[in-house]
Amino acid sequence: MKAKTFVSVAACLLAGTLLGRGWYVSAEASHERLVRIAELQIDPAHLDVYKIALRKEIEASIRVEPGVLSLYAVSIKDQPNQIRLFEVYASTAAYQAHLQSEHFKKYKSETAEMVQSLKLIETEPILLGAK
Amino acid sequence: MKAKTFVSVAACLLAGTLLGRGWYVSAEASHERLVRIAELQIDPAHLDVYKIALRKEIEASIRVEPGVLSLYAVSIKDQPNQIRLFEVYASTAAYQAHLQSEHFKKYKSETAEMVQSLKLIETEPILLGAK
Repeated sequence: MKAKTFVSVAACLLAGTLLGRGWYVSAEASHERLVRIAELQIDPAHLDVYKIALRKEIEASIRVEPGVLSLYAVSIKDQPNQIRLFEVYASTAAYQAHLQSEHFKKYKSETAEMVQSLKLIETEPILLGAK
Repeated sequence: MKAKTFVSVAACLLAGTLLGRGWYVSAEASHERLVRIAELQIDPAHLDVYKIALRKEIEASIRVEPGVLSLYAVSIKDQPNQIRLFEVYASTAAYQAHLQSEHFKKYKSETAEMVQSLKLIETEPILLGAK
């Protein structure tokens, strides 16, 4: 890491701490994260019920699991049954623990019949910037 | 929002504040956000230079712009020149301000010749959970 970049990241981390909010992940730290994109197509007839189950699963995961850092769920504009998830875990171990959690297993079993297709995309983090 | 869900979200927000870290966005607040996915293919011959420019742009945006909440950049595993960005802005106005920022305009002009394709996907947030 260049000195200038390091100073920038350090300043941002300090600012985040002082402000009592936010986190910022350097390129190096980003590489320890497990980041995954999921592309789902949901049966339109069950979309509302699916979204309730998804929200419950995200809320529980963020609240209970220290290694689940971000779970962002969106639908594509004008294609409400096309769901995209952007998932950030602290490590591979954190992701494995997530798969074994009761709330995740409940979500999977409850929604199994609603999910028409699921594509999981493995990624390499470049930089995860957030506050 | 159900009472139980509200209590959960409120507890999480409180915990985040007490711990001096983290934020959690309810389904309702999520809808005020502008969330976009960008799919880019980069000229492999310029990939390293492109990633440096991208990291600088993300660092500056997160540090300087209050309305840029998350900029996550990843490449698809085993396809390093396939870049995916997951972008969260506080509002449409924050996104418009971002487009006018000096660091964004610099990134766009520096990388124009490196980007072989760019697909912007507009989304509707379902739930943005993070800590």
